[in-house]
Amino acid sequence: MSAPGTLAPVLPGRADVEAAARWLAGRIVRTPVLRSPVIDRLAGARVLVKAENLQAGGSYKMRGALLAVGRLARLPECAGVVAQSTGNHAVAVALAARRHGLAAVAVLPVDAAPGKVARARAAGARVVLAGTTLDERLAAARRISAETGYAVVDAYDHPDVIAGQGSASLELIEEAERLGTPLDALVVPVGGGGGAAGACLAAAGRQLDVYGVEPVGCDSLARSLEAGRRVTVTPGPTLADGLRPACVGELPFEILRPAVTGVVRVDDDAIAHAFRLVLLQLKLLAEPSGAAGLAGALRVAAGGGHRTIGVVLTGGNADAELLARLAVPHPDDATSTVERVR
Amino acid sequence: MSAPGTLAPVLPGRADVEAAARWLAGRIVRTPVLRSPVIDRLAGARVLVKAENLQAGGSYKMRGALLAVGRLARLPECAGVVAQSTGNHAVAVALAARRHGLAAVAVLPVDAAPGKVARARAAGARVVLAGTTLDERLAAARRISAETGYAVVDAYDHPDVIAGQGSASLELIEEAERLGTPLDALVVPVGGGGGAAGACLAAAGRQLDVYGVEPVGCDSLARSLEAGRRVTVTPGPTLADGLRPACVGELPFEILRPAVTGVVRVDDDAIAHAFRLVLLQLKLLAEPSGAAGLAGALRVAAGGGHRTIGVVLTGGNADAELLARLAVPHPDDATSTVERVR
Repeated sequence: MSAPGTLAPVLPGRADVEAAARWLAGRIVRTPVLRSPVIDRLAGARVLVKAENLQAGGSYKMRGALLAVGRLARLPECAGVVAQSTGNHAVAVALAARRHGLAAVAVLPVDAAPGKVARARAAGARVVLAGTTLDERLAAARRISAETGYAVVDAYDHPDVIAGQGSASLELIEEAERLGTPLDALVVPVGGGGGAAGACLAAAGRQLDVYGVEPVGCDSLARSLEAGRRVTVTPGPTLADGLRPACVGELPFEILRPAVTGVVRVDDDAIAHAFRLVLLQLKLLAEPSGAAGLAGALRVAAGGGHRTIGVVLTGGNADAELLARLAVPHPDDATSTVERVR
Repeated sequence: MSAPGTLAPVLPGRADVEAAARWLAGRIVRTPVLRSPVIDRLAGARVLVKAENLQAGGSYKMRGALLAVGRLARLPECAGVVAQSTGNHAVAVALAARRHGLAAVAVLPVDAAPGKVARARAAGARVVLAGTTLDERLAAARRISAETGYAVVDAYDHPDVIAGQGSASLELIEEAERLGTPLDALVVPVGGGGGAAGACLAAAGRQLDVYGVEPVGCDSLARSLEAGRRVTVTPGPTLADGLRPACVGELPFEILRPAVTGVVRVDDDAIAHAFRLVLLQLKLLAEPSGAAGLAGALRVAAGGGHRTIGVVLTGGNADAELLARLAVPHPDDATSTVERVR
């Protein structure tokens, strides 16, 4: 899978996720696992939601960023880090760099959500806006790295990032066991696939189906699994701005291909519905990319065969404007909540 | 303070709150304590928020209700319970009764939020709508109790309810100590005063100021403290529908009078601002009565002299319509968040 002349990256395994969870404990927020009777009834199954929107930095990306930057910070030659993303990963890397006293450069698309640009700056990063595509951001990150000597921390093609994100799934799996309701399915949104790959590693050796969720039109993982090789798509418009990479990462795909049970595609209506369920029933603000996970879980539940479904609610960095748009009362609220049924 | 011919109720103490916390552990959600750098910066102090909006039933009222109903359920003659409130307490008692196999009647005002009526029904309660004032609801509850033999569970004039609600404050105090940032102030919204009285008991023996928060025009506790006796007010309009009792409870006032440090009054603008801060910075949906606590904490912080302020975010049962109204972007968002400052 690697380019000729480069070493194949070492695939992380379940032990790496377990080690990540141990190292991160006490360094991150231990986010709660929550349930709502209304959502359970809608799903016809128990739905356990891991509230990573309450994580430091507002998303589970903090886990992989802390792990990766923490390792780099132990190298005497490392003075700074560069990260590209549509938002949360770059913010998380900047926050992690600040904790370790390293400089940080965040490479964001020119059309990044203003809140994410501002959050990266508030986290102490120098922000560079570079094009609208992943390739443009990657090229900018490499150029900055060459100029400054700062290490690039990839958003998903990175063993620490995969293991770190996977620790959220591991905590959810273990908490469900403690509650006496072990998961038989685990659902994670897919952008570059790092979190979903981490979920597969966390689930390894357990009787547990793992599903990825992609927005309709941003379904590189689904197409790649069908083709048996990584397929690049031209991402269509979606509410879930964090799930728009044109192609699943190389390392994540190697992990996902033999391990993931399937991928469900969700449209903006399903994401908006899930966003409102999370808000009104779980009392949590999700970003649309996070709400996509619950939308996918409801699709998985509708397929039947699962009693307890875990979802990683990956982030909560929604802008005020988006919130106002999605918070408008909707007819679905009436049919989907116990409150109005009786 | 008691009517002639009745026994004075035994005042609960700190040991009762500690016992309540032990009994409730495992029966309720262990809600997280959360912080936001933006809110800390606004306050000029650390602000630790106990997210009881994530509690079972959507509010901290579940604590006192479970404790009180659990004790009643051990009496062989008890077949059911009656509770009056503007919403959360009656819902919590209904949920607690269902857990214990008891019947429940919820007495709500005719102008109760539709979501709260529906939630009480969904929890299995028979709902009786009675007038708009506390006295009308209390009379209805007593009449129903006489007819059915069901026990009345008062919303705040009840030692178990005070001790139960106090357990939220105790968990917050202890978590702050564990985090290495012990509280020097604790802020709790005041309706009938049960939660604030419980907070005073939880704080007893510690170097810790306790403040109540009342909406402007619904300030029975503030006036009662000034007068040295309970004063009834005619509650004015407020976003915080849960904080509108005309008079602080008898038992809470006995506890609060010698113990509470002070009361701050907050208006609808301050509550709405706090609601948006909770939503956009902490990623949590609060009901306005819960957001009032943060509004009060910001007032306490502005007074200076506190490094670490704890707030009990008491509930999250906001209707979709209210959410849509309060989620409209507001100029305050721009000046109050780090995101827009840089």
